[in-house]
Amino acid sequence: MNPDISRERGNASFDLEILTNILDGGAEKTRRRREIESLVIRDPDFQHEDLNFLSRSERYDAAVKKSAQMIVKLREYGISDPEEIYSYKSVVKGLHHEPFGLHYAMFLPTINSQTTAEQHRKWIPLAELCQVLGTYAQTELGHGTHIRGLETTATYDPSTQEFVLNSPTISSIKWWPGGLGKTSNHAIVLAQLYTQGKCFGLHAFITPIRCMKTHVPLPGVVVGDIGPKFGFDEVDNGYLKLENVRIPRDNMLMKYAKVEPDGTYVKPPSDKLTYGTMVFIRSMIVGESARALSKSCTIAIRYSAVRHQSELRPGEPEPQILDYQTQQYKLFPLLATAYAFHFVGQYMSKTYHRISGDINQGDFSGLPELHALSAGLKAFTTWAANAGIEVCRMACGGHGYSRCSSLPDIYVTFTPTCTYEGENTVMMLQTARYLVKSYKQVRAGQHLTGIVSYLNEPQSRIQPQSVSSRPTVVNINDLVSLVEAYKLRAAKFVEMAAKSLQMELQHSKSNEDAWNNTSIDLVRASDAHCHYVVVKLFASKLSEIGDTAIHSVLSTLALLYALHGVQQNSGDFLQTGQISVPQLAQISQRLKGLLSELRPNAVSLVDAFDYRDEMLNSSLGRYDGNVYEHMFEWAKRSPLNRTEVHESYHKYLKPLQSKL
Amino acid sequence: MNPDISRERGNASFDLEILTNILDGGAEKTRRRREIESLVIRDPDFQHEDLNFLSRSERYDAAVKKSAQMIVKLREYGISDPEEIYSYKSVVKGLHHEPFGLHYAMFLPTINSQTTAEQHRKWIPLAELCQVLGTYAQTELGHGTHIRGLETTATYDPSTQEFVLNSPTISSIKWWPGGLGKTSNHAIVLAQLYTQGKCFGLHAFITPIRCMKTHVPLPGVVVGDIGPKFGFDEVDNGYLKLENVRIPRDNMLMKYAKVEPDGTYVKPPSDKLTYGTMVFIRSMIVGESARALSKSCTIAIRYSAVRHQSELRPGEPEPQILDYQTQQYKLFPLLATAYAFHFVGQYMSKTYHRISGDINQGDFSGLPELHALSAGLKAFTTWAANAGIEVCRMACGGHGYSRCSSLPDIYVTFTPTCTYEGENTVMMLQTARYLVKSYKQVRAGQHLTGIVSYLNEPQSRIQPQSVSSRPTVVNINDLVSLVEAYKLRAAKFVEMAAKSLQMELQHSKSNEDAWNNTSIDLVRASDAHCHYVVVKLFASKLSEIGDTAIHSVLSTLALLYALHGVQQNSGDFLQTGQISVPQLAQISQRLKGLLSELRPNAVSLVDAFDYRDEMLNSSLGRYDGNVYEHMFEWAKRSPLNRTEVHESYHKYLKPLQSKL
Repeated sequence: MNPDISRERGNASFDLEILTNILDGGAEKTRRRREIESLVIRDPDFQHEDLNFLSRSERYDAAVKKSAQMIVKLREYGISDPEEIYSYKSVVKGLHHEPFGLHYAMFLPTINSQTTAEQHRKWIPLAELCQVLGTYAQTELGHGTHIRGLETTATYDPSTQEFVLNSPTISSIKWWPGGLGKTSNHAIVLAQLYTQGKCFGLHAFITPIRCMKTHVPLPGVVVGDIGPKFGFDEVDNGYLKLENVRIPRDNMLMKYAKVEPDGTYVKPPSDKLTYGTMVFIRSMIVGESARALSKSCTIAIRYSAVRHQSELRPGEPEPQILDYQTQQYKLFPLLATAYAFHFVGQYMSKTYHRISGDINQGDFSGLPELHALSAGLKAFTTWAANAGIEVCRMACGGHGYSRCSSLPDIYVTFTPTCTYEGENTVMMLQTARYLVKSYKQVRAGQHLTGIVSYLNEPQSRIQPQSVSSRPTVVNINDLVSLVEAYKLRAAKFVEMAAKSLQMELQHSKSNEDAWNNTSIDLVRASDAHCHYVVVKLFASKLSEIGDTAIHSVLSTLALLYALHGVQQNSGDFLQTGQISVPQLAQISQRLKGLLSELRPNAVSLVDAFDYRDEMLNSSLGRYDGNVYEHMFEWAKRSPLNRTEVHESYHKYLKPLQSKL
Repeated sequence: MNPDISRERGNASFDLEILTNILDGGAEKTRRRREIESLVIRDPDFQHEDLNFLSRSERYDAAVKKSAQMIVKLREYGISDPEEIYSYKSVVKGLHHEPFGLHYAMFLPTINSQTTAEQHRKWIPLAELCQVLGTYAQTELGHGTHIRGLETTATYDPSTQEFVLNSPTISSIKWWPGGLGKTSNHAIVLAQLYTQGKCFGLHAFITPIRCMKTHVPLPGVVVGDIGPKFGFDEVDNGYLKLENVRIPRDNMLMKYAKVEPDGTYVKPPSDKLTYGTMVFIRSMIVGESARALSKSCTIAIRYSAVRHQSELRPGEPEPQILDYQTQQYKLFPLLATAYAFHFVGQYMSKTYHRISGDINQGDFSGLPELHALSAGLKAFTTWAANAGIEVCRMACGGHGYSRCSSLPDIYVTFTPTCTYEGENTVMMLQTARYLVKSYKQVRAGQHLTGIVSYLNEPQSRIQPQSVSSRPTVVNINDLVSLVEAYKLRAAKFVEMAAKSLQMELQHSKSNEDAWNNTSIDLVRASDAHCHYVVVKLFASKLSEIGDTAIHSVLSTLALLYALHGVQQNSGDFLQTGQISVPQLAQISQRLKGLLSELRPNAVSLVDAFDYRDEMLNSSLGRYDGNVYEHMFEWAKRSPLNRTEVHESYHKYLKPLQSKL
């Protein structure tokens, strides 16, 4: 054990295990999580060479192997609770993804929820036994977030009772679905349904793409891997071009809409049926933001405790880089953010389950708010975590660039969350739509409930005015007062966006033009709203915490999160009159004070996330702090070191030397 | 040619070629640059498979091949002007780096400038004929920016007239030098010199590491590749552990300091001798920031002109995504930044040459300012470009994640500039040291000249005060007025940091503690200073431009750059009283207006950077806009598509299906 990091651990002011239990949601959950992690970590079948040393094809190969083993082992161990499956999988996957991801995350759930009883009986056993390996093919080369624009066609032929699937243009080629390139033998294809000469919009079709015996692509199916990406080397994101591919009528998912044998189209009873899954995945992504950021903070903070550099005081040894104020200023606000997002993730998961319960009881009233919240928070947290990972990486100096730090892997694995499951700017605008609608309801005399209820309050309709003419409202040492300031900022920005939209409507050709011409303001309003929600949820989490020492350190983190946000957005708070100019200097001083207060607890606060070395897979973030020894051992295994003299020497260097 | 992008080009309000000439620094420079580019692009010896499809070892192999060919061809063509060599090399390298980089950038220049005449006669021909392939080994596993902390030792043994080199600890292993792992047979090793029982600090030693005949590592030399990184796959960044490696006394670079045969140490006449190279490289990096960002903008803006998505107006076709206000708000300020940095890069290069001239005449007076400027601007521009590349990538939706977009490559190749040649935060603090010193000189009654002369002005010593009590000074439509606002902000922040430092000195144990406790403020001051310099240089570039149409469009870009910066840092400008709260709304409106004004010129403004398709290597950024066709062709060549059925099917999937 590195002595610096041991000493850090001696400085903690709180009981680590209690904090870990809070993060897990209870001591029993911590115990079971660790048990599951050990199952994987001890399992020799999951040991393999560092993926960074392999070619893309080898990485894919290793991932397929792991996925296949995982399925067998989950059955063997009888792990069936969805949360436990999730835990087990995330340990197996480590920092990477798996080619079977969509088989379990999209193919099976869609079959489950959108098939008739008969279809269910046919497909579920095939999918569970992996005879059918499926993916979900929605996105096309030319069409992403706006799914109504998809071009793939499924034309019903009553003479054979088949659908004929086609990719009529190059932009209609299915593009991106995970597991589509090489792994899957079936895909649920989203296509425009044509029958009796009319288009009935998007529907889903189970489409065989590879022979179930030989795995060779079927006639008319042009399928393959879309090529290397920024990360996701293990996943065969694929393309699929359909050329008059015929599938039986029964392969259309017909729980709701139907096509009868003669080609008659039967409408679905409602069109809000897949709303829930989307909301669920976005809610989960909030938790992913917390995890990606807490892993990055663990690596950067542990490394900063071990790394020494420069002279702080002449003649004294080089200090730990964690003692530099600029380093603390980079890392501690991110640590606070990781905790904030963790608690927001817990809230989202709880809220999702509560509202799902209501929906099962027939009460859909909570869905619009959850939809708006999950869209905005997905964008807000992924953007913040995405930038934060890179700050952590660069805070590790040169070594942060090495793959042995794992920080590059964390980044490339995480960054797609900003785009998939709804592009972030589009998500922010969806939330804005809800906020503007709520604002209008208040103006029309309605009383709002739930998270937007702050729009009811009259102080939200103040005019922008100069700072000094208003009394200072915020107490910079009081979290409750800061929550209030964030609330007023959000209220103000929602109002400003709504008014700006109204003004645009007077000049614009259409509602859509007015919306577009206000969209910068609308995104700002959503951002301010989400920021308020995060600060508020962090503050209310504190009230649940009984342990004094932990309450104290989490309060410091929450205050840091809130005050740092005020400083970073000081123009907003000055503009809306929540803070005064002299307070800015006080905030700067207070922030420096908070950094110093957190310094002794920094390593323990990342230890509390409880990531085992096998899960971080980072030389810099090792629990024992033996960074350099481990880096050297790792480097020796680099593929370029397999030979003492690389073949390129004989091929190019030797001839060059004789040529010149 | 894609019709959308053709139409865009028809909308330009200015003559493209004239703007390209301005960017190149004259029509003749444009002509010669294109000539050199064609030499490479037409050369069949430089054609190769997309590096993204190769393994790391194959990528290294391809890069060595290219580097070797490049050396031969440069001689063949007789290209010897350093700027032309730079042009030629950058086309050959494309978006990547080369294993020989340090041989030319560090090894040869160091030999040139730090050897005695006799050493020069021996080593230069060997290096020029590539018999000696060298690198520059400074950074160690445990020591980066703070080079005095390096631990490698060179102990003089008068009995054999040799130095004995050692890596006494694990943290002293040389780590990171490019070309060290596999390519080089010599390294200039920076080591602590010991002779006659005393340490005389860091000196440089030419150290043979591999046999010049067989390329096998020499006895006592443990050398290899440090393993995969975030990018730089083509470069064998290496490690070097020295175990009693003996080199002749003559291998110490002895132009300045010397060790006599009996071991007597002779001091160098001055210790500022390598100052210049560092300043030069940092100045060059400012230009790299401009290039990386302008390439990214070219890709994202062309793609946004071709990509259609969603409905703006019901019933109408999906609009180009460049018509979305949020998309313009992401990309156009970055486009303006790319132009700003380009002109700053030109200024830095000119200033460097001017001051180098002075130094050659014995006048060192300009060096401190250039040093401070190059350090701060290196940090300011690389941070901005680094974040900007990622904004461009994410503005391309999912396809930005594909390696065929080139955006991931641009990012991973560029991001190390934030860390190498001086870690950015350390750079900002170096600039701050100069600013604080200048501030103190003014307070002591001195009159400053040069770029910090604004610190002379009395208005820079106003107190922070409330916004409304001061008259509004800025005219948001006037660039000159905005330059003034940036200047006052910088002056204010320098003063605040200096005062904060003074206050800390009263409480702190030492100057170093006080400095550390003020470092957040100091970095802010540097940042404000650099931002001012960039706005100012952009504004003064405009005065050189005679063509009315180009003057007009560049003025719009400059105003966008300046106003966007005010908006992003509105708290600063409110705090220092440069803008009022009501002006914030006006700025928002004006920014929207500027986005609309730039919209018709956007594609032409990126065309003017004049990157040929072969240099961008991006399916999304193609000149002809035929994005999807090209992506499909590229994907088909993906390594995973070499077989129809991947071997993992037979190894894992088939067995899994029979097992369940």
